[in-house]
Amino acid sequence: MTSAPLSTPAHLRPQLAVHRLGMAHPGDLSALAALFDAGTMAADEVVAVIGKTEGNGGVNDFTRGYFTQSLMQLLAERTGRPAEAIWRELPCVLSGGTEGVLSPHYVVFSRRMVPADAGCSGGSHVVERETRIAPGTAADTDAPARREAVAPGALAIGTAFSPPTPAQDIGRWTHVRAVAHAVRAAMDQAGIDRPEDVAFVQLKCPCVTSARAQAAVAAGHTVLTADPGRSMAFARAAGAFGAAIALGELPDDPALEGAMLRDFDRFSARASVSSGVEVSANEVIVLGHSARWQGPLRMGCAPMRDALDIAAVGEALRPLGLQATPQLPADQATRVAAVFVKCEPDRRGQVRGTRHTMLDDTDINAQRHIRGAVGGLVAGVLGDGRLFVSGGAEHQGPDGGGLVAVIADVG
Amino acid sequence: MTSAPLSTPAHLRPQLAVHRLGMAHPGDLSALAALFDAGTMAADEVVAVIGKTEGNGGVNDFTRGYFTQSLMQLLAERTGRPAEAIWRELPCVLSGGTEGVLSPHYVVFSRRMVPADAGCSGGSHVVERETRIAPGTAADTDAPARREAVAPGALAIGTAFSPPTPAQDIGRWTHVRAVAHAVRAAMDQAGIDRPEDVAFVQLKCPCVTSARAQAAVAAGHTVLTADPGRSMAFARAAGAFGAAIALGELPDDPALEGAMLRDFDRFSARASVSSGVEVSANEVIVLGHSARWQGPLRMGCAPMRDALDIAAVGEALRPLGLQATPQLPADQATRVAAVFVKCEPDRRGQVRGTRHTMLDDTDINAQRHIRGAVGGLVAGVLGDGRLFVSGGAEHQGPDGGGLVAVIADVG
Amino acid sequence: MTSAPLSTPAHLRPQLAVHRLGMAHPGDLSALAALFDAGTMAADEVVAVIGKTEGNGGVNDFTRGYFTQSLMQLLAERTGRPAEAIWRELPCVLSGGTEGVLSPHYVVFSRRMVPADAGCSGGSHVVERETRIAPGTAADTDAPARREAVAPGALAIGTAFSPPTPAQDIGRWTHVRAVAHAVRAAMDQAGIDRPEDVAFVQLKCPCVTSARAQAAVAAGHTVLTADPGRSMAFARAAGAFGAAIALGELPDDPALEGAMLRDFDRFSARASVSSGVEVSANEVIVLGHSARWQGPLRMGCAPMRDALDIAAVGEALRPLGLQATPQLPADQATRVAAVFVKCEPDRRGQVRGTRHTMLDDTDINAQRHIRGAVGGLVAGVLGDGRLFVSGGAEHQGPDGGGLVAVIADVG
Amino acid sequence: MTSAPLSTPAHLRPQLAVHRLGMAHPGDLSALAALFDAGTMAADEVVAVIGKTEGNGGVNDFTRGYFTQSLMQLLAERTGRPAEAIWRELPCVLSGGTEGVLSPHYVVFSRRMVPADAGCSGGSHVVERETRIAPGTAADTDAPARREAVAPGALAIGTAFSPPTPAQDIGRWTHVRAVAHAVRAAMDQAGIDRPEDVAFVQLKCPCVTSARAQAAVAAGHTVLTADPGRSMAFARAAGAFGAAIALGELPDDPALEGAMLRDFDRFSARASVSSGVEVSANEVIVLGHSARWQGPLRMGCAPMRDALDIAAVGEALRPLGLQATPQLPADQATRVAAVFVKCEPDRRGQVRGTRHTMLDDTDINAQRHIRGAVGGLVAGVLGDGRLFVSGGAEHQGPDGGGLVAVIADVG
Repeated sequence: MTSAPLSTPAHLRPQLAVHRLGMAHPGDLSALAALFDAGTMAADEVVAVIGKTEGNGGVNDFTRGYFTQSLMQLLAERTGRPAEAIWRELPCVLSGGTEGVLSPHYVVFSRRMVPADAGCSGGSHVVERETRIAPGTAADTDAPARREAVAPGALAIGTAFSPPTPAQDIGRWTHVRAVAHAVRAAMDQAGIDRPEDVAFVQLKCPCVTSARAQAAVAAGHTVLTADPGRSMAFARAAGAFGAAIALGELPDDPALEGAMLRDFDRFSARASVSSGVEVSANEVIVLGHSARWQGPLRMGCAPMRDALDIAAVGEALRPLGLQATPQLPADQATRVAAVFVKCEPDRRGQVRGTRHTMLDDTDINAQRHIRGAVGGLVAGVLGDGRLFVSGGAEHQGPDGGGLVAVIADVG
Repeated sequence: MTSAPLSTPAHLRPQLAVHRLGMAHPGDLSALAALFDAGTMAADEVVAVIGKTEGNGGVNDFTRGYFTQSLMQLLAERTGRPAEAIWRELPCVLSGGTEGVLSPHYVVFSRRMVPADAGCSGGSHVVERETRIAPGTAADTDAPARREAVAPGALAIGTAFSPPTPAQDIGRWTHVRAVAHAVRAAMDQAGIDRPEDVAFVQLKCPCVTSARAQAAVAAGHTVLTADPGRSMAFARAAGAFGAAIALGELPDDPALEGAMLRDFDRFSARASVSSGVEVSANEVIVLGHSARWQGPLRMGCAPMRDALDIAAVGEALRPLGLQATPQLPADQATRVAAVFVKCEPDRRGQVRGTRHTMLDDTDINAQRHIRGAVGGLVAGVLGDGRLFVSGGAEHQGPDGGGLVAVIADVG
Repeated sequence: MTSAPLSTPAHLRPQLAVHRLGMAHPGDLSALAALFDAGTMAADEVVAVIGKTEGNGGVNDFTRGYFTQSLMQLLAERTGRPAEAIWRELPCVLSGGTEGVLSPHYVVFSRRMVPADAGCSGGSHVVERETRIAPGTAADTDAPARREAVAPGALAIGTAFSPPTPAQDIGRWTHVRAVAHAVRAAMDQAGIDRPEDVAFVQLKCPCVTSARAQAAVAAGHTVLTADPGRSMAFARAAGAFGAAIALGELPDDPALEGAMLRDFDRFSARASVSSGVEVSANEVIVLGHSARWQGPLRMGCAPMRDALDIAAVGEALRPLGLQATPQLPADQATRVAAVFVKCEPDRRGQVRGTRHTMLDDTDINAQRHIRGAVGGLVAGVLGDGRLFVSGGAEHQGPDGGGLVAVIADVG
Repeated sequence: MTSAPLSTPAHLRPQLAVHRLGMAHPGDLSALAALFDAGTMAADEVVAVIGKTEGNGGVNDFTRGYFTQSLMQLLAERTGRPAEAIWRELPCVLSGGTEGVLSPHYVVFSRRMVPADAGCSGGSHVVERETRIAPGTAADTDAPARREAVAPGALAIGTAFSPPTPAQDIGRWTHVRAVAHAVRAAMDQAGIDRPEDVAFVQLKCPCVTSARAQAAVAAGHTVLTADPGRSMAFARAAGAFGAAIALGELPDDPALEGAMLRDFDRFSARASVSSGVEVSANEVIVLGHSARWQGPLRMGCAPMRDALDIAAVGEALRPLGLQATPQLPADQATRVAAVFVKCEPDRRGQVRGTRHTMLDDTDINAQRHIRGAVGGLVAGVLGDGRLFVSGGAEHQGPDGGGLVAVIADVG
């Protein structure tokens, strides 16, 4: 596990910076290079990248690989370290597909030690999370809203890579536990002690490929599925369940293995998971609030009940002191640092009782459909198309819905 | 012009009914047949149909033809008139493409004479139109909102077919004037006297085909363009300008011909135009308010500044006494009878300063992108995916934006 | 089973006519109407239609339904029988997708009784079938070509509809046997006594829909799969196995049920199967040679080893006295009446050892890819794009390949 | 002009090697790295690369940029020169889109000086070019085949970069002349003296972008078109005309400027042109035969009349001593080193009198359609899917057709 618990000298504190940068094409890292050139941040301060590239978001979307290669090359040039070594340590989670009003961009998370400033972090901005939906259970639309006080502190980040998950473990309980373990390691690194202080977990989990599956079978193992597409869905489920266990949303009960891709009332309300053939280990980015960090950034996250749940955006904004009426005013919009959305074409073929055609379209992939629609909705509320909107939301928020998370400067 | 001014006996008044019906596939008219069977309406009371079918919305979208054939066949069976004759008199405007959360459906407008009920229509529901954007001029975001009192009365409908527009006239000022003339005829049929009482005009305008263009040239004429795609854009422009003249949004000035597809600050804020090779005449549906009609239906319409203009939806709802906070409450949502949206992928490649990729996507047509995004936005506000969302919004609302119109029961 | 054995008066014989007709769009039956108007054939002589429409060939391809509705409407007008009744008796098998050089067209099979002409049919054109691949077994590329004398006679046609196949039977051995029974009934109707005289079988088999699967489960049954896409594959397999049994290519052995969608060395070399939600019974068209028919038409059919097997086209042409060098000369091309091709994107991801990308393309469906490629190949040999090229070739010809069949006038 | 005439010591001669390499994804250069590792070739011997990547081939196809970045990075590592410098000198022409059976691959051209071997090059393999179509004139299908003796010698290569073509020159006669000049420079570098000894010219020409067009207009220039797509077509026309002039297929007559994109009977039968926003200079690769080179490689090239012109493949093979019957036998197929095809969806909407649907498909780009179809045809003849098949064939071969070129080892 390439992650160590947070340990800082008494007079210094970590502070997170979040930069949301545009790109002219998937190989264009000029905006980040300019920040390096200007001294805004140093290349070795970068701890994670989450981005949205303009491919199709499917198996043959090479914009993710192109961006990653370009990013690692830039970081290698600026740090003097080999690109390959950086690639093994720096989580870089990309979602392809900028349908509709979505704009290609990437969010750079960087950490810097700054002199401890007693008055900066802490009590002034207690972040609250209000939700109509209890995570880890069925969405109960009649339930009274829960309002939880979130720990004082500033936005913190921690990352971790699990050991490689072998093909025979993909989508099984050992996979779930490996993710849970990695999420806890990332929480430790972030200095986030309480699961309820975690605002958002971004995961990238490995899946089987035909070759990996065949090798596992040849070695006497069995695989859950040899179909890469199906394996990706199981990997996302394992990631969601692993995060849910680490965050206390689900019990660490192996009997839950049977609920994966079956009982969609079991979910994490704060995990966003992608899966890809290009990784062999589970990559974890944990974002949350910690009194050991300082700075003006805070994060809100809310589950979306379905693809029309516009109220969820307001819920994610509320703890940040932001309010859309119906759109975020310009002075509030400038305080938004990054937005992350998970969504899903409802597998029952309907949204609120009317038929949708996303799952039956031979011309446009269903994930492209749903990203475009939910992206349009959230962009309308925020007045900005620079959103990380990703499909494949199994067990990540309510069935047929997903979740929305916002980072903002509350300083 | 197949349209006659409204003339009714003193004791009777026309009343409009609007039914929004789902379909299982483009040939499925069973919901309308059921209404006929139940006696809810008679086949000869149907005066217009506007629908959204699940094709790709492009040149090779045959769901529109399939639906039209099925509709005309049903009406022929139920009225005993030839399908062909009905097809020549009944405007049927279809937009293909139910991207994202949009749901295939069709809106049936039917007119019935009912005993005049002095108290029903009239003063109780004065419909007001408030707008931040003055139609026919450049969008002025700093202008104070204009609030216009709309004439008392109930929602009225009128339809008209212009004479066939020859290929050499398509997209020229004679085309514009023919549309203006037809819109006025439809207003007369609707009994709408003042242009400001028109809420919404839906048009379907002919364009050139290669064959028509060649025939016109062979006969010694010149055509504006022989490219059908380009011709469709000019036809939409002619439709929008024609409506704008009839509605008093633009002056009837031939010098404006040069503004078509050039000066996008000239537009109608209440016209929605489609163009297709399958028509040779301009088909017009005018909806507005008239004291000579009765019934509980009213209509609101607002221009959209860009693809993120969520406030415009509220503006269209407000005169109907509806309010989204941020979504229309269920009891208000049931009062919505139909929704019409026009939108456009911003041709400058950006939405509010950030790059979009709609125009450069070789895999998904730009119109499909924008329909999915704006459809997601409007559906989120209304809590319903049964929206007529159509692209190709040249001169129909502000450049890069469009318009949104809502019919609701205010009774 | 709506099929009766062939029985004709002594002085009359059936003669098959095959017309290959173009269409301007999927609702355009004008070419067939013109043949009726000209007296070339009567509407009640039409016994089957196989066509290629310009949709995407996927779940949401409504060009098939549009064409079918238009065809049935025309036949109803011309015969005075209800469209619904004709639809239940007349096999109409459509494949959507005219990728690349493929041209939208439909093949109309009509049967007419003509005075028996002793010298016309029979010995002069013994059709031989030469094949490098033994049907029903693994392709053996080293096997010497088999040359079988095919029965003398003219091209004959027979059709049959099985009883509806219930959801719980789809893809199971009872389904296979129902198809085999229907194929034999169609052979009887055609007057084809020996399985080896069958040249080609076109099948359309029902699959489960979500609704049908749920109803079956509610009634206490189990279904093989509730996934419509997977069910279509099983239905095609059942169709292929059923035909193979009737044609003597596979034994009628229930143990073979385990080979369906698993052992792709088991196949029919003369069956082309499509599956769709729109049918509940298995529709069968059998084409072959019978001494009881007369006329100048004959048919050849050859399996394709893979998507590059250009030699197979020559094999299908050879028994018809046609030879491509490398293209069919114009005088021979005019004798071709219809061409049918089944093909498949190789599920192992390679064609002859080099990688293909058809299965990983999120933008274009794999079946569209393979139809375009194999269509280009066969069209190049024949010099004509009017080919029925259909994907989904499980157990229809060798794995990764398919088959090609040609009807020609040899008179 | 970064090109110098061929000049070699008396005892040494240049020899061309051509390697056709597969790739697992657009960033996979491992096959080339392996050749470097094995000493098969040195990185500084590479003189040009032509490849086919698995993108969509459209504006948003980033597989080309990804491959180029990866290639330049590998060459930089192995030569010690900056990637940027190599990129400015080494022509790398990529076509996106591996539709159907086409396989992602790249062709590496490398040049090495070897001891002169009097017996090796020269008379033994006189390459002949036979064609039914006179280049530079209308296709005359009745004309007797012309058989021209091509100069003895081995396959030679020359490359050149023109100076940057300013936006105001794109698609104009100055652009044509710049290309012609660069082609002649590449011929000089190749040591090819006679135009008729040139077998094939691959070009990559710059086009305007919106930004470049605006800058040119701001500087007081006019541009032919500001639409990038249209500009690419003009750039391809300029490339084709420039090559045709250098090869003597068209006269150097400025009056011909009016024929560009109008008179499609004017074409080069040996030029393949692509255009892209990523280049500012015209990149040229000339391949032909020269007595000053040695080695076993030769090249054949033939125009294709239309998308069904299978005979053209045989014409390209014939001078190489290869014959398809109907497919190239395995022992001949191993001698094929590379294949290049240009093709075009017939803009008149028909192929040999039957309607095609490529130009009206809103779901699949027309170029993807035609590449898949012609790729299937040529792959069927050669038994191999590793073909460079590129669309956009304006003035490159007959209208609606294109050309096919083959490099083979005749030793």
